[in-house]
Amino acid sequence: MRTAFYISDGTAITSEVFGHALLSLFPTEFEHQTISFVETIEKAHIAKEKINRACARSGEPALVFHTFVNNDIREIIDSCDGVIYNFLEHFVAPLEQELQLTAKPKAHRTHSIHENSYDYRIEAVNYALANDDGSIITNYEDADVILVGVSRSGKTPSSLYLALQYGIKAANYPFTDEDMEELTLPPFLKAHKKKLFGLTIDAQRLMDIREGRMSNSRYASARQCRMEVREVEKLYKKEKIPFVNTTKFSVEEITAKILSETGLQRYKY
Amino acid sequence: MRTAFYISDGTAITSEVFGHALLSLFPTEFEHQTISFVETIEKAHIAKEKINRACARSGEPALVFHTFVNNDIREIIDSCDGVIYNFLEHFVAPLEQELQLTAKPKAHRTHSIHENSYDYRIEAVNYALANDDGSIITNYEDADVILVGVSRSGKTPSSLYLALQYGIKAANYPFTDEDMEELTLPPFLKAHKKKLFGLTIDAQRLMDIREGRMSNSRYASARQCRMEVREVEKLYKKEKIPFVNTTKFSVEEITAKILSETGLQRYKY
Repeated sequence: MRTAFYISDGTAITSEVFGHALLSLFPTEFEHQTISFVETIEKAHIAKEKINRACARSGEPALVFHTFVNNDIREIIDSCDGVIYNFLEHFVAPLEQELQLTAKPKAHRTHSIHENSYDYRIEAVNYALANDDGSIITNYEDADVILVGVSRSGKTPSSLYLALQYGIKAANYPFTDEDMEELTLPPFLKAHKKKLFGLTIDAQRLMDIREGRMSNSRYASARQCRMEVREVEKLYKKEKIPFVNTTKFSVEEITAKILSETGLQRYKY
Repeated sequence: MRTAFYISDGTAITSEVFGHALLSLFPTEFEHQTISFVETIEKAHIAKEKINRACARSGEPALVFHTFVNNDIREIIDSCDGVIYNFLEHFVAPLEQELQLTAKPKAHRTHSIHENSYDYRIEAVNYALANDDGSIITNYEDADVILVGVSRSGKTPSSLYLALQYGIKAANYPFTDEDMEELTLPPFLKAHKKKLFGLTIDAQRLMDIREGRMSNSRYASARQCRMEVREVEKLYKKEKIPFVNTTKFSVEEITAKILSETGLQRYKY
């Protein structure tokens, strides 16, 4: 199997995203290897040897996705036996011309601490944890968004992702069995209705997830799951709460939909 | 101010990473706008109008970073008044030639649910939450890594990021004031010594963070912070626990260092 390398002087997250986006277009498998923090000539030589060994092993040149800005290090990597894909070089010159500015390459540009954004994100994580699963219902004044939905519809991972990735303070509140008969919005949610965003999920998928946690329970029964999903969706429609069905979506997609529909301000871009 | 647009038929995360990596090289400010889930001709026209309005407003062409694979939609976006940067087009043909394969563009490639990886990540988030802050010390058998460090050195955000981003199960355990006199590894950590990874932080930064939470407390005092940091670093060295100083690092950098030093297997790439 061919190896795909993602290499950078920083986290290599940009190289990974760049490489994955391209390789996902091809119907074949790769072995993935990330080499991060290649900040010195010495580390560049070690990385190069690693690439060369992978090429020798598979008998095919490895694919090397990188974003180096330091020329000395870049040249060492570029001299390996793999095929180099460096997406910066294709775009920097056209952008320089369009902006009438000279690029100022510096290491650790993209995924390092930027002023402000770091504190926002940590604060948002603390907020999401403190206001997870309806544990406190008196902090909603500070929420940027309040995710609502039945148990196991994706609220907690979505709240945490919004916090970690975008610095958005997301509380979440579960509608439980006790709420279900004649489901209405409790007053502490009604007071922040504009912040509400609903999650829903197909009853069958909900059953599967709950079954994995509490096998053969009423909580995981077909009847209960169908009823809860029906009730919350009725509520969302009645109260005009925007909502998304999470069944087929990753946490990236769920949160991108939330951002897109609410126009929430991000503290990190 | 010029507007930078990040557009895609999916989450637009790839377009964002691509655009940010480039724009971060230029010493100027941009207004950022993401338009995700442009999946129809109609939505493409709406996006195009939005771009054109931004161009008219600022008097300069907007920068448009996109990754469309559907030609009909791409052509509409490409016909806007902005300048188009499409990173796929530069790399697909060379990759096709190298791989001797034809690219099979499909929408929602990169940040959608892939088999397995989704369940791993949700399970890892649940694990991180259940095993946060030393709340349970009997589950370490299941941990991929156990982060240790003093209170507020970055353990919780790092654990959650490892879970959400990579599907890695990270527990975390805090060394508290009571542990500090003659700090040694408690037996339940010693039993999993190979899984331990230490976080440390500059005492001054620790003081600032703790001061924000419990002003004028012993917990936030210079003396206490210095002592705690000194003790844990001594322990890491004595026990040969790998560690990273988180003071100047983002959560992406901290976790990339953990991955790089431990060689932990990721469940999502």
